[in-house]
Amino acid sequence: MLDRAYFERLDAEDPLAPTVARFRLPEGVVYLDGNSLGPLPAHVPDVVADVVERQWGEGLVTSWNRHAWWTLASRVGDKLAPVIGVPLGTVSVGDSTTIALYKAVGAALGLRPERSVILTDSGNFPTDLYALGSLARTVGTELVVAEPEEVAARIDSTIAVLSLTHVDYRTGRRHDMAALTESAQAAGAVVVWDLCHSAGALRLDLTAADFAVGCGYKYLNGGPGAPAYLYVHPQHQGIIQNPISGWWAHARPFAMEQDFTPAAGRERMQVGTQPILSLAAFDAALDVFSGIATAALEEKARRLTSDFIRLVDERLEGFEVITPRRAGERGSHVSLAHPEASAIMAALVSAGVIGDVRPPNLLRFGFAPAFQRHVDVWEAVDVIETVMDEGQWREAEVPAGPVT
Amino acid sequence: MLDRAYFERLDAEDPLAPTVARFRLPEGVVYLDGNSLGPLPAHVPDVVADVVERQWGEGLVTSWNRHAWWTLASRVGDKLAPVIGVPLGTVSVGDSTTIALYKAVGAALGLRPERSVILTDSGNFPTDLYALGSLARTVGTELVVAEPEEVAARIDSTIAVLSLTHVDYRTGRRHDMAALTESAQAAGAVVVWDLCHSAGALRLDLTAADFAVGCGYKYLNGGPGAPAYLYVHPQHQGIIQNPISGWWAHARPFAMEQDFTPAAGRERMQVGTQPILSLAAFDAALDVFSGIATAALEEKARRLTSDFIRLVDERLEGFEVITPRRAGERGSHVSLAHPEASAIMAALVSAGVIGDVRPPNLLRFGFAPAFQRHVDVWEAVDVIETVMDEGQWREAEVPAGPVT
Repeated sequence: MLDRAYFERLDAEDPLAPTVARFRLPEGVVYLDGNSLGPLPAHVPDVVADVVERQWGEGLVTSWNRHAWWTLASRVGDKLAPVIGVPLGTVSVGDSTTIALYKAVGAALGLRPERSVILTDSGNFPTDLYALGSLARTVGTELVVAEPEEVAARIDSTIAVLSLTHVDYRTGRRHDMAALTESAQAAGAVVVWDLCHSAGALRLDLTAADFAVGCGYKYLNGGPGAPAYLYVHPQHQGIIQNPISGWWAHARPFAMEQDFTPAAGRERMQVGTQPILSLAAFDAALDVFSGIATAALEEKARRLTSDFIRLVDERLEGFEVITPRRAGERGSHVSLAHPEASAIMAALVSAGVIGDVRPPNLLRFGFAPAFQRHVDVWEAVDVIETVMDEGQWREAEVPAGPVT
Repeated sequence: MLDRAYFERLDAEDPLAPTVARFRLPEGVVYLDGNSLGPLPAHVPDVVADVVERQWGEGLVTSWNRHAWWTLASRVGDKLAPVIGVPLGTVSVGDSTTIALYKAVGAALGLRPERSVILTDSGNFPTDLYALGSLARTVGTELVVAEPEEVAARIDSTIAVLSLTHVDYRTGRRHDMAALTESAQAAGAVVVWDLCHSAGALRLDLTAADFAVGCGYKYLNGGPGAPAYLYVHPQHQGIIQNPISGWWAHARPFAMEQDFTPAAGRERMQVGTQPILSLAAFDAALDVFSGIATAALEEKARRLTSDFIRLVDERLEGFEVITPRRAGERGSHVSLAHPEASAIMAALVSAGVIGDVRPPNLLRFGFAPAFQRHVDVWEAVDVIETVMDEGQWREAEVPAGPVT
């Protein structure tokens, strides 16, 4: 039986408890939006203050050498590598996810110059669709947007690049990465995965993938707008062309040469100078994943989301669970459809349960294994039940823009 | 006569003295590299700490609304507008300068679809040349790299876009922005200026320019890797296509629509989520320019650079001033050629005078009117003279990479 004691027992036995303890969360808040903005690891403020006051304030320009700001992006990439299941030396960090995707797919297209179709799906995050659309327009390629369940059938020898997001930001549906990668590559396509709603919460094995991108600020807790990352399979590193060449991608950036000679390694996918304060926060935040197997993250994510779905089924009325009920087919958030989603979420936030809303009618609840307590599941459903029973949501003030 | 008392008198009479007092500089350092990384304004650490601990740590995802992170980039743009001499509502902030340039020139090319030449010069900063090269390759346009003094003569009716950096990062030579803009536009070209080595130090009037970009971390003191800015003339705002479309450029980003509809205003040139910590530092740092006329910055810059050149002429041997001697033809840094530039700069940094080196043989000394004391000029030349007389530079350890 799922009672409070059950969740407290899970927390007491949680092998990730030492990781959970590294986060700072406000009293009285059940935070179920780590899939949108991860919370603050407790050690990060001191790191950022040191970078601002000592490195920038006292070291001034000499900190580019003395504190190795030049290589910070690559060091962050190496911290990320085990979290996304790729080898060291393959991940660069910087820019926004949208730009990382533009670069990755642009470089991928260059590997298949004889083909002219980018395939994606309608469940992709809007910015991915927009970036792919503008890239297709710029280089004169066709963009095909299939329904998520039709992607596999749409793969054929015309496809240059298959670009998908692993976990659907709305429904939580997870693509079968291994199967789609294999079938696309068998058809001669290059595969680019967006891991925004996976990395830091799921077991990931990108061994077969050609490229991957993702953001730093969701399950990775890198801070608001933390820079993005970009993985390139080692076999492509030395031959791809970055569509946006900048001096950070040059083989000898400080030689200040007039002609562009690309770096041999993952630096080739960099562009310009990166925001060091945000990058340093991301770097520090990643320490919470040190030594943690991504299988342990996924195991906890499955437990959290399964228990939540079960409690929703048992105790709530009027909500439709639209996230797949098979754990292997979903990511680490659960979406509930309800016609009054925005008003309900506004009331929940007032009551201390923070999730978010995606149009037109979805309440999203993220369960981030790194900082979530199992008892959060119990408390969240308790509060949802109360808010619905007492009708608090009917008086909730719904902002014009996003609820959270 | 230029003695120490003369410089102390200038400092005592400096109308920018209250601005100078807002910066925190280490004891014993004469900082002449604000043209590479501006120093820390004293109030910035508290602002950043508040964003990290209270806004991110306590507000969590609700801070996107509560602390208006969604509009921070535009508010930073409006703080910047008077500093670069453009109207409010025309500047977006985000990404790196290289990406800002790629977007601006890409959008500019779209305004001249019947033309196919981008004109730039060999004095441009390398990353600008690389970005222009990759853009030209991607869209099938020709990139012409003229010598700086031949740009004017090279302008003709084949040119789609003229893309230049206002002040040469090596020599300090300043292009005649008004004349080149006028002649390029008369020939039907669109003009894109890079203000990296101008903004925050010079009087700027971009009224006639079509686009401008620049970085936040030099004379604008926004912190290491602070985001870039992008100005679009109001007449182009509603008609241009951003070559990298992302959700922050959408007319209704939170509607999460599948199709891209560009925002009407300067937001159209945004891409993805911006690094809020770095952006907040930049935002706060710009407060030091509040109420300051850029003419006052340029007047002080001319005095600082003129006095430095005069002292170099009077007191130093073996250095060639390669920066134009007419104040109106240079920016706010002075470059001295010397065959032992790297060793000399290494010795200067050890002695507390921080400038930098550009290959193969240039010592660069930046004079940033916002924080520079006039007496810095005197002290710097004193130290250079001593280092040369005593031969300290002969024993200096020169790093393999950049000296500073």
